[in-house]
Amino acid sequence: MEAILELLEKNRLPELREKLVALNPADVASALGEVGKDKLLLVFRLLPKDFAAAVFTYLDPDLHRLLAESITDQEINDLINRLFVDDAVDFLEELPANMVTGILAHADPTKRAAINAALRYPDNSAGGLMTIEFIYLFEAMTAAEALAHIRKRGMDRETIYTCYVTSPQRVLTGAVSLRRILLSKDDALIRDLMTTPVIAVHTHDDQEDVAQKFREYDLIAMPVIDNEQRIVGIITIDDIIDVIVAENTEDIEKMAALHPSESEYLKTGVWRLARNRIFWLLFMMISATLTGAVISHYQELLQTVVILAAFIPMLMDTGGNCGAQASTLIIRGMAVGEIELSNWLKVVWKEFRVGILVSLVLASVNLLRIMLFVKDSNPRVDLVVTLTLFITIVFAKLIGCLLPMFAKRLRFDPALMASPMLTTIVDAFALMIYFSLAGLFLGL
Amino acid sequence: MEAILELLEKNRLPELREKLVALNPADVASALGEVGKDKLLLVFRLLPKDFAAAVFTYLDPDLHRLLAESITDQEINDLINRLFVDDAVDFLEELPANMVTGILAHADPTKRAAINAALRYPDNSAGGLMTIEFIYLFEAMTAAEALAHIRKRGMDRETIYTCYVTSPQRVLTGAVSLRRILLSKDDALIRDLMTTPVIAVHTHDDQEDVAQKFREYDLIAMPVIDNEQRIVGIITIDDIIDVIVAENTEDIEKMAALHPSESEYLKTGVWRLARNRIFWLLFMMISATLTGAVISHYQELLQTVVILAAFIPMLMDTGGNCGAQASTLIIRGMAVGEIELSNWLKVVWKEFRVGILVSLVLASVNLLRIMLFVKDSNPRVDLVVTLTLFITIVFAKLIGCLLPMFAKRLRFDPALMASPMLTTIVDAFALMIYFSLAGLFLGL
Repeated sequence: MEAILELLEKNRLPELREKLVALNPADVASALGEVGKDKLLLVFRLLPKDFAAAVFTYLDPDLHRLLAESITDQEINDLINRLFVDDAVDFLEELPANMVTGILAHADPTKRAAINAALRYPDNSAGGLMTIEFIYLFEAMTAAEALAHIRKRGMDRETIYTCYVTSPQRVLTGAVSLRRILLSKDDALIRDLMTTPVIAVHTHDDQEDVAQKFREYDLIAMPVIDNEQRIVGIITIDDIIDVIVAENTEDIEKMAALHPSESEYLKTGVWRLARNRIFWLLFMMISATLTGAVISHYQELLQTVVILAAFIPMLMDTGGNCGAQASTLIIRGMAVGEIELSNWLKVVWKEFRVGILVSLVLASVNLLRIMLFVKDSNPRVDLVVTLTLFITIVFAKLIGCLLPMFAKRLRFDPALMASPMLTTIVDAFALMIYFSLAGLFLGL
Repeated sequence: MEAILELLEKNRLPELREKLVALNPADVASALGEVGKDKLLLVFRLLPKDFAAAVFTYLDPDLHRLLAESITDQEINDLINRLFVDDAVDFLEELPANMVTGILAHADPTKRAAINAALRYPDNSAGGLMTIEFIYLFEAMTAAEALAHIRKRGMDRETIYTCYVTSPQRVLTGAVSLRRILLSKDDALIRDLMTTPVIAVHTHDDQEDVAQKFREYDLIAMPVIDNEQRIVGIITIDDIIDVIVAENTEDIEKMAALHPSESEYLKTGVWRLARNRIFWLLFMMISATLTGAVISHYQELLQTVVILAAFIPMLMDTGGNCGAQASTLIIRGMAVGEIELSNWLKVVWKEFRVGILVSLVLASVNLLRIMLFVKDSNPRVDLVVTLTLFITIVFAKLIGCLLPMFAKRLRFDPALMASPMLTTIVDAFALMIYFSLAGLFLGL
């Protein structure tokens, strides 16, 4: 990296070019991120065009935009024509609509049609992920013919390792790997080599489901079909990895009551970050007043036995943590397909027993702690605390597993719904039990 | 699925076999999961051996074990020889040591040596993930020679799509894709077709770093080298997807203060589930007594102005939520490589400003709510609550971003360390501020 900056500093451009093309395009892209905005265009223009297009796919979105605004129409047209359709679509989706129109006006007609078609699919659907550069074969071809076809057409295809077999009407009938073709006799028919039925997704399938299917079948590419079973594109595994990481980030953010955001933290402005957090914070703050209302309701009791207040944080925290553990396991289990809604009774029964075990341990440890370390403790208060702890934990485990499943049943997002509501419900419940028991046992 | 169970019920085995081999091995594996333990062996033995081995790799670990215990030594030996080394290792790692020894004693010597070598690497290292079935070429080969070599050796290699070029001493010197070979002239030299330097990992690299590298370079396979730069195996992308999902699950579990577990929720026993949760719950329960101690300390004040207690849940919850939002973003940002420790000042400054914005909004809304909806509210108490809310939120945002970075600096796991400690610190701080301000403004 220092070597690159030095060559750039000294304006030794031919050497710089030589150095850069010897690197991996991903590394050149990360170097471009550090040369500074003023030099970016200079260095980018230095690269051979095909190499530049490869580097471009690895650049950060903000650099994409910067470049798109600085290079000429001719250059951008050239670039678009060298990108695979899926990469071009990703890039165009980051730009304002009027720029996209301008760019597409100059693109070559076939490419433009393909890009326009892809842009019509929702961003997070199979159609939005797919590329149209794949190899298709026909059943009547021999292995030798297929191989010749692949060698002729393979240059501009995103993958040549899985080929799809279609009828003349483009209806998908089978799939065959390059490996299979290569390792077969020359006169073997594609019809006999192909596997069928093919694992495929529909254009409108959600990207999360597509990723799940990739995992399930260990595939490196998957065809995308339309309602007439015609193949319209393929999805390759490198894009799926990005989907998996993005979906996980989204789930994690939702569980922390954050409005999910696709932009990197360091590149997101303060206003935007604040906006992503405000809604759920307000929601949870307002609902926490419900818990406050429980306390207000028992004001007199609290005034008489003020020591009761000292256990409020511990009861609230433990209840919240117990609930969060259960809901996290269930949300994640549903997300990776390990838990189905039909398992709900099994889950509840499991959490009930876990709750009993956990609460026995925690309540005993807590009682022991009070008896050993708290001077002049009031045995009745200790009893109330212990009982509340026990009931709250079991309740928290049950509500923690039921809420996400209930949310999913209602077709809400489990991660989004469950976490913010869980705390409020468990807190209010814990304090209600606590003060009711206190009223009962302290004879007030 | 019903059709399969019916054929099995009626003992129409030839038909069943025909039906099964027409399916995808992953689907057969999930069907095997439902036929019941007594029929499992029967159906498994029905399958052609190569197909059975493919199905085997998709089976759940508990069925692996069940099969391993039921089939003969000869059958298990046959199976091991048909599995790729990485799949065989995954399978053997699930079994008790004495079974593994027994199985390996029967395996063929080359396979045994390879498996033994792989078993010596830690489970979550590059060495533990790799397989040794890859294609290697030499620089002096022509494209035609390389292709002939691939066609001859490709049958039992896990991937033939990326080939590695080595010196006679097996030192890795380059990589070349099958695509490049296939699309080049017959007499082109591998030396001129290969890319170099090759993106590679070391045998002892952590699987999380390996996954990061796959994502960064969009690769479908990566070579694993030893300290002498010799290639010892390759890792393929299907295994990396599993790593990414598993690592994400682990992070999510740690953030919810769960001891991470690799087994599926529904297949984990109640005792085990309880054990995974107890430690952090106990830790957090005990530390919550710290917060309780703050309340005890201000008992007299609380007794005089008992309404103060009603705001405790809101203050604790809001502080905790604000901190969790910040820590989640930072933990995730560090996990996916978007945030480096060197960015810490930038992060703190960002969170400080976000904290100010968020606290202004929340404190105002809360003040408005009290003034509008709470009858006979005490203006001084309102002021104390508003100020505490403001200070707590800013503090929670700062500590929420600092804790994970601090944990990482000390080489602890950020997800594991930050979440459990965050609540305690923020809660105790919030209540200390609250009661100090109350003492000040209520003139006690």
